[in-house]
Amino acid sequence: MKTYKELYTLVESHINQLKFDGEPRELYDPISYMLALGGKRLRPVLVLMANDLFGKSSEQAIHAALAVEVFHNFTLVHDDIMDKADIRRGKPTVHKKWNETVGILSGDLMMIKATQLLCETKSDQLFQMLNLFNQTAIEVCEGQQIDMNFEQRTDVSVEEYIQMISLKTAVLLGCSLQLGAMAAGANSKDAAAIYAFGKKLGIAFQIQDDILDAFGEGDKVGKKIGGDIAANKKTLLLITAMEKATGETRNRLKQLSESTPADEQAKIIEVLSIFDELQVKATANVLKEQYLVSAFADLETIDVEPLRKTVLKSTALELMERMS
Amino acid sequence: MKTYKELYTLVESHINQLKFDGEPRELYDPISYMLALGGKRLRPVLVLMANDLFGKSSEQAIHAALAVEVFHNFTLVHDDIMDKADIRRGKPTVHKKWNETVGILSGDLMMIKATQLLCETKSDQLFQMLNLFNQTAIEVCEGQQIDMNFEQRTDVSVEEYIQMISLKTAVLLGCSLQLGAMAAGANSKDAAAIYAFGKKLGIAFQIQDDILDAFGEGDKVGKKIGGDIAANKKTLLLITAMEKATGETRNRLKQLSESTPADEQAKIIEVLSIFDELQVKATANVLKEQYLVSAFADLETIDVEPLRKTVLKSTALELMERMS
Repeated sequence: MKTYKELYTLVESHINQLKFDGEPRELYDPISYMLALGGKRLRPVLVLMANDLFGKSSEQAIHAALAVEVFHNFTLVHDDIMDKADIRRGKPTVHKKWNETVGILSGDLMMIKATQLLCETKSDQLFQMLNLFNQTAIEVCEGQQIDMNFEQRTDVSVEEYIQMISLKTAVLLGCSLQLGAMAAGANSKDAAAIYAFGKKLGIAFQIQDDILDAFGEGDKVGKKIGGDIAANKKTLLLITAMEKATGETRNRLKQLSESTPADEQAKIIEVLSIFDELQVKATANVLKEQYLVSAFADLETIDVEPLRKTVLKSTALELMERMS
Repeated sequence: MKTYKELYTLVESHINQLKFDGEPRELYDPISYMLALGGKRLRPVLVLMANDLFGKSSEQAIHAALAVEVFHNFTLVHDDIMDKADIRRGKPTVHKKWNETVGILSGDLMMIKATQLLCETKSDQLFQMLNLFNQTAIEVCEGQQIDMNFEQRTDVSVEEYIQMISLKTAVLLGCSLQLGAMAAGANSKDAAAIYAFGKKLGIAFQIQDDILDAFGEGDKVGKKIGGDIAANKKTLLLITAMEKATGETRNRLKQLSESTPADEQAKIIEVLSIFDELQVKATANVLKEQYLVSAFADLETIDVEPLRKTVLKSTALELMERMS
């Protein structure tokens, strides 16, 4: 079994070999720029890891791996426009470095390139792979729109929140794993199980992400603590707190989560103290653990030698650990 | 052979049956809205017409027909954002009726839906069809970016202009015809010939469109005469005029085509008089005819009973006629 590091290296080398040398340059340069920003390459590594789980060589699944990475970067470029984000990984976002037209169009191009890459896969399940990929792409768009809609709402439920993160981020992890499994010729039961594993893992990751934004150690997480609180983002913590809070606390929390005071730090501290009072971190952790346990149960059902599952398990746990 | 009207009716009925009933509504309503704006449905009709040419029933090619129409509408939604257009077919554009986020995301969704529709085609050439569709989609993006770049330039050549309209609009006509041919199992020589026919026809249409904007009868064309001149658009006429003009005329034309005076009408009249002086209409007409003749020559090479080509020929001529 290949390790995360080995598969990451393989993905990086293939990404570096991708040529985006078409014209006009305004359309192709942003693709190279985005892909060069780096990152964990989680999605393409998961494609290869699932392929490996079913005993196949990575070469067979490399196009699917590149497809999900290019697709993921397409969503980042368009999301950054919608979120009016100026910076990504310490560099200007595409629409800032170029302009919005370039952001929209080069994003469009990346979406098409992703499909093109997937189509290069040699597999008799390629059609099913394409269908899964398209369905997932649709769900990711739905998740983003639901997230945008949340900004205008004050009554988001935990259930709705889980549905949103599931669509916006978790289904793509499930899809990545299932594509790798399909490229290896896995049967439909195992393909469905690895998808469920990835999706639930994705939900757990996102909950962890929410928790760390409020309760993590800034340096370790690599971003400012309380950023979500300052931005009035409807995270699981805020939604849980709003569900638990009553009376004066509820009014105050609602007021705080709709304000942007000059003293941002004071607001963060006050919201955190309400979170503590209501024990929302513990509640969120319980939910996260439930998804993790359920994810591992799905992994158990897959019909391969148990030892082969070690890399996926340890990767899931290490990622969760590294984040905490 | 089925007529344009028959195929149009078939396309309309299938478009009306398309269900975009997913959630959130902000994402799906704009798709129904755009498709309900109507139009000639030229692209999907061409898919079915090519399918008919090779003796196959329309049902077989209907998914490809719907795919190109949904794809075309995706490009309109995103182009309208980039062009800051408020009105399309007398109705507010998607980003005006909703907002820019909805415009970007529902456009993205339409692109994916288009691929999904194409994938429903039952054909052993589906892979080649997907490859053609993706390649065309990429070229359409390139064409739009080149068009945006033209706005910043004053030295666009006729050759560059033809390349731009070829990518931005003509390749999709070629692609539509070729998809219909492939769905009918046409051989690769005939598929290439019908693509070439459609692409050249598309270039001729666009040249005609440029000519009519300056020299058409307003009511017939359905838009304001001289709109391109007022907007300083780099049409074939302006580019040809700039290539032909010398001395004072050239300076004046350059000045006019970079200005937005209060008296728009006076500017249009002056530019038109320069166009007349330089006989750019005649030059553009010659170029248009060359593309038309070459398109029909490509159609001739296709290996089907000559009588079967009548509908495609008359459609091409009627469209050109109706525009003039």
